[in-house]
Amino acid sequence: MVLAHTDTRIGDRYPTRLVGPAPHLDRSDPTVWGRIEREELASFDADGFAIIDALLTPGEVTDFSAEIDRLAGDPALHDDDRFIVEKSSNRVRSIFEVHRLSTAVAELVRESRVAGLARQVLGSEVYLHQTRVNYMPGFRGAGFYWHSDFETWHAEDGMPAPRAVSLSIALTNNYSINGSLMVMPGSQRTFVPCAGSTPVDNYRESLQKQEIGVPSEDDVATLANRYGIAQFTGAAGSALLFDSNVMHGSSNNITPFPRSNIFLVFNSVENTLVEPFAAPSRRPGYIGSRDFTPV
Amino acid sequence: MVLAHTDTRIGDRYPTRLVGPAPHLDRSDPTVWGRIEREELASFDADGFAIIDALLTPGEVTDFSAEIDRLAGDPALHDDDRFIVEKSSNRVRSIFEVHRLSTAVAELVRESRVAGLARQVLGSEVYLHQTRVNYMPGFRGAGFYWHSDFETWHAEDGMPAPRAVSLSIALTNNYSINGSLMVMPGSQRTFVPCAGSTPVDNYRESLQKQEIGVPSEDDVATLANRYGIAQFTGAAGSALLFDSNVMHGSSNNITPFPRSNIFLVFNSVENTLVEPFAAPSRRPGYIGSRDFTPV
Repeated sequence: MVLAHTDTRIGDRYPTRLVGPAPHLDRSDPTVWGRIEREELASFDADGFAIIDALLTPGEVTDFSAEIDRLAGDPALHDDDRFIVEKSSNRVRSIFEVHRLSTAVAELVRESRVAGLARQVLGSEVYLHQTRVNYMPGFRGAGFYWHSDFETWHAEDGMPAPRAVSLSIALTNNYSINGSLMVMPGSQRTFVPCAGSTPVDNYRESLQKQEIGVPSEDDVATLANRYGIAQFTGAAGSALLFDSNVMHGSSNNITPFPRSNIFLVFNSVENTLVEPFAAPSRRPGYIGSRDFTPV
Repeated sequence: MVLAHTDTRIGDRYPTRLVGPAPHLDRSDPTVWGRIEREELASFDADGFAIIDALLTPGEVTDFSAEIDRLAGDPALHDDDRFIVEKSSNRVRSIFEVHRLSTAVAELVRESRVAGLARQVLGSEVYLHQTRVNYMPGFRGAGFYWHSDFETWHAEDGMPAPRAVSLSIALTNNYSINGSLMVMPGSQRTFVPCAGSTPVDNYRESLQKQEIGVPSEDDVATLANRYGIAQFTGAAGSALLFDSNVMHGSSNNITPFPRSNIFLVFNSVENTLVEPFAAPSRRPGYIGSRDFTPV
């Protein structure tokens, strides 16, 4: 294993963005750091994810859908860096820092049914590392290839350990056929170093199509054969909570049924960012926040 | 409705490749022309498709898988027009006229468990309009957007009526997550005219990425809301028989699990080809056969 940026890697337990292929690493950190009390989270430690049915009521789904439609249509945001457009269609794909753009989302995040999930898993106070809304259109909706979020957050944001969780709250029905998220249950226990050094301002490309920070086909095959692949399906209002290092991805969506969700990343206040472990510079704060104020 | 090639359309009950949008047409032909005796085909008339479990034994799956691997690796075929390569990866996507390239496939086609399915639905002797093997690789396997086969066979091959069926025999497991075929049950009853006139030698492009002969997003939404979307999943050796006018498509496949199948199109000998209804010239015989010899 040859390190591309040896100077920043001393003592790094999760080396990545390497010059060549490297062996998979067994995760030395736990998956559950706290005490699980909610029944829906019973299998989180084993699987690295859990589905929470009806996290939002139908009325809340309607209200939040209207709220994110309002954001997508807000002309003041169209030239904002936080507004990510899909290359092929020129349609909005994501809007970052949604908890700052929407009071309703900011209030939702603070509720114990939301932030409490993260606190139970992470065993500490938590803060928002990243928030966004995702819009996957029907007909020509592009998917996302397999990746571990932690691999990127570690390399490009300086997140020391995989002590973070993401909560994806569905605002539309997730069917097996409309590009719903696929996860490899248990894969959070394996860290897959990725090959290739990180270009300057990699995030500008990677938010649309990730080229660096993706596992090799051999890596994906090894993990899929070991852990299998599950898919998150469920009605609007349900949510998926998943570990930052779970291998996940999605197919494209040719159905007429769009998918949108509110995506919240909680990090432990005991795991705040340092300098990037494998990137020439920090990403902007709306992608990897350095406001560590607890929720 | 303005016809692009009015001279060839007189009396055409399925006009397509039109200059602008046109209303959907109720199919005037039956779906089942014969007498259904096999239990698996009981819902074919209503749905326009049927799944036949274990059409091949596990031993046959192994043998045919080896046979199609042999074809894919045959250097003598690599420059053959019948050998279709995926643009993005340069890997083989389909090989046409497989019943002429493989004695084993030719023998399989003639068996009553195969051709007999088509004869029951079509109510006559049948011949092979097209045969191929499809290879959808894992990781980066491209899907196929929604389309009706009959729309193309009518426009570009001169097939008069939707009195043809396709049999897709799975040689790999079809999961919900690896790009398995999606069909709209009952959609064979609606003919969706497509906009745009057919370029010369359109098939060279359309076998890789179809641009002409695809329904509009409004068309797809209307049909999906009316008929719903089902997916063909099943073990290797199972098969899907479907009407030539059923609206179908597939997502891409990012899983490591490839999909391959033997694809056989049977047309009624009472529905043999005439001149193309909406294309400047015939497609090659390996795509739309003019050998009408019954199986």
